[in-house]
Amino acid sequence: MALAGARVSGLRCMKCGREYAPGEAAYTCDDCGLDGILDVLYDYDEVRRTWRREDLAASRESSHWRYLPLMPVSADSLPSLRAGWTPLYNGRGLLDLPNLWIKDDSLNPTASLKDRATSVGVARALAEGATAVAGASTGNAGSSLAGFAAAEGLPCYMFVPADAPRPKIAQLLVYGATVFAVDGSYDDAFDLAAQAIERYGWYNRSCAVNPYLVEGKKTVSLEICEQLDFVAPDKVFVPVGDGCIMSGVYKGFAEFAELGFTDRVPELIGVQAEGCDPIKVAFDSECEMVPCEACTLADSIAAGHPRNWRKATRGIRASGGSMMTVSDDEILAAIATLGAATGIFAEPAGATAFAGLTKAVAEGTVSRDETVAVLMTGSGLKDTASAMKAAGEPVTVGRSLSDVEAALEEAAADAGAPRRKADGGGGA
Amino acid sequence: MALAGARVSGLRCMKCGREYAPGEAAYTCDDCGLDGILDVLYDYDEVRRTWRREDLAASRESSHWRYLPLMPVSADSLPSLRAGWTPLYNGRGLLDLPNLWIKDDSLNPTASLKDRATSVGVARALAEGATAVAGASTGNAGSSLAGFAAAEGLPCYMFVPADAPRPKIAQLLVYGATVFAVDGSYDDAFDLAAQAIERYGWYNRSCAVNPYLVEGKKTVSLEICEQLDFVAPDKVFVPVGDGCIMSGVYKGFAEFAELGFTDRVPELIGVQAEGCDPIKVAFDSECEMVPCEACTLADSIAAGHPRNWRKATRGIRASGGSMMTVSDDEILAAIATLGAATGIFAEPAGATAFAGLTKAVAEGTVSRDETVAVLMTGSGLKDTASAMKAAGEPVTVGRSLSDVEAALEEAAADAGAPRRKADGGGGA
Repeated sequence: MALAGARVSGLRCMKCGREYAPGEAAYTCDDCGLDGILDVLYDYDEVRRTWRREDLAASRESSHWRYLPLMPVSADSLPSLRAGWTPLYNGRGLLDLPNLWIKDDSLNPTASLKDRATSVGVARALAEGATAVAGASTGNAGSSLAGFAAAEGLPCYMFVPADAPRPKIAQLLVYGATVFAVDGSYDDAFDLAAQAIERYGWYNRSCAVNPYLVEGKKTVSLEICEQLDFVAPDKVFVPVGDGCIMSGVYKGFAEFAELGFTDRVPELIGVQAEGCDPIKVAFDSECEMVPCEACTLADSIAAGHPRNWRKATRGIRASGGSMMTVSDDEILAAIATLGAATGIFAEPAGATAFAGLTKAVAEGTVSRDETVAVLMTGSGLKDTASAMKAAGEPVTVGRSLSDVEAALEEAAADAGAPRRKADGGGGA
Repeated sequence: MALAGARVSGLRCMKCGREYAPGEAAYTCDDCGLDGILDVLYDYDEVRRTWRREDLAASRESSHWRYLPLMPVSADSLPSLRAGWTPLYNGRGLLDLPNLWIKDDSLNPTASLKDRATSVGVARALAEGATAVAGASTGNAGSSLAGFAAAEGLPCYMFVPADAPRPKIAQLLVYGATVFAVDGSYDDAFDLAAQAIERYGWYNRSCAVNPYLVEGKKTVSLEICEQLDFVAPDKVFVPVGDGCIMSGVYKGFAEFAELGFTDRVPELIGVQAEGCDPIKVAFDSECEMVPCEACTLADSIAAGHPRNWRKATRGIRASGGSMMTVSDDEILAAIATLGAATGIFAEPAGATAFAGLTKAVAEGTVSRDETVAVLMTGSGLKDTASAMKAAGEPVTVGRSLSDVEAALEEAAADAGAPRRKADGGGGA
């Protein structure tokens, strides 16, 4: 397998179309500013000439570096933590869909899909000789960056609102990041991070400005294709917050189709929380995105001001897909169903795509003969408070066997029948 | 690669030596009762004849089923969740040991090493046509069993003390287990589980009685050997609670040496918490184990009455190894050091082996030219309360860049120099 990597031919502003040579633009478009997020371009002819599906089939690489020929990094600056190549599980009849597949991205180093992006960001930072990495976050992106930076000995500066949940701050601190608790909102933390990054020249890990991070996220699509023997699914359900994951998901499927590794791009269904749906509104209205006040327990997709909405909606439209929303109650129910029927433990944002699929099946927009993939983007261990809301209650018993017998008889009478495999039932 | 599996030739009581044919004994020795835990025996000549290192080198299997010829299960009854084949990271100069390797077993389906054992237990349960699985637990073993059972559609009954931490109960419930909250201690829950298992004929997932679970745990050693190109380390540090992990670790190294895949068994160093060290006491005194009152924050190894102490001490002795203890403060410091220097986030029990190594290096019992492996057995996300104790505090700032500048100048003055790669410093 070719491991040279870095077949990047240039960068193109996805707003105005201006092109840049590799290395010419550090982050966003000079003309369009923060609104001009760049696309990374490759020499696909060259990639196609030197890299075949058979090379992948023979690869023993247990990370997403197996896709190096299609990534903007070189083999000599890869971080050590193992990102990607996560399992794709069959749903075993769940929702009466025989060809349902669930991508468990909690099995990444810091337990979320964000590690795919971070690993590429840190590889770029190492290649560019960065002295430190930085960002603003209270969630998965922050802990992911802190973890990868720790492993590479890169100082990490992270800006969080002072009222961020203590466990998330603890994870950042355990990874040795310098954590600034900013007296203000998340937006205040974001602004202060931008100023400090400018002032100190730290490497910026934000999908909002850094074009290379989406190149890490796209590998989730490459893996789904490879794990399905290079047959792309019919539909893929994706949780949507700031739009970066969806942007990457589209790019991955589009590039494998471009290379001829698959024969189509799946229909992409973006799922937002009802309480935070600015990308759905922009998609449906075909207007500019209007920020909203985020109100959902799915904190990892609670992006009221999504920065990558333009790239996300472009991808969905190109795929022939659509946007939908689900309620917080539907998200909690999805956590319980996923856990009980598949053994996959999701945080709220991680269960959101499955909640969307559940709703789509109920509405009759998914048919039984379709192959459907669902992204599970983060571990339920990151938010056990929400898990407790989803989980129901234990059966309280005394110390004697007769208590257990009585409880089981009562449960059997209530249920009518024993629980069956993949029945989609709740968690209690 | 031969995938027939199930080359089990018999079982032998590790106390009295009585042998059983495969399938003859369900759990422990008929003569010795609960004290007579069985060893699983294989036809090593047959394994050696049909399975070579080259077969492994060519294997693309991304789970511990790559070792099927040396496991008590067949390819036709394997559970779907992906256990094992976790990364082995180089410590990059940490503790001034160039050949330090850390096995990150948090990257298992339910985020702990226990999944290795559970996957084998559930495979046996499926092969034996069990209608349900059960156990007593408040921690990793319980959530592991519940997760694997959910994925296979097997009902799971779990007994926990009523005052068990809510997040751990929530995880069990999300996985759809029937959770009995027993009005009593963990020992009460254990006793009630045993009675109910007897009464209902559920499959028993307890390393204390089920001989096959250790066969899953041993794969962590097989992986370490393979990942080090079939050169066994000089020393391996292992956290010790009930003794099951150590029993498996020894068996894995011994079997690869027996097969000629490696040329020796490493010196095994068992590490217990100072507040719960009955196996260390038994090992040092060469007497029977005397149960103690467990008092340590490392809950996953807080086994005051360890059931597998005999097998564990036998393995350590056969390896030429030893037992040691560390304090809770040393465990917390190890969490911070591991996180900040390697990007690995450990729960207290998961950091205990590294705490032991740190102490051993300070005492001069590990030398710089030795190859040392350390087991990290569970994710820090399982116990963020302890992480918060280990993590230090963030830097509080206002919303202006001058606040950040002032804070960084102060930190630089305090530290004297910037943080360096793998310096072993704390997490703050």
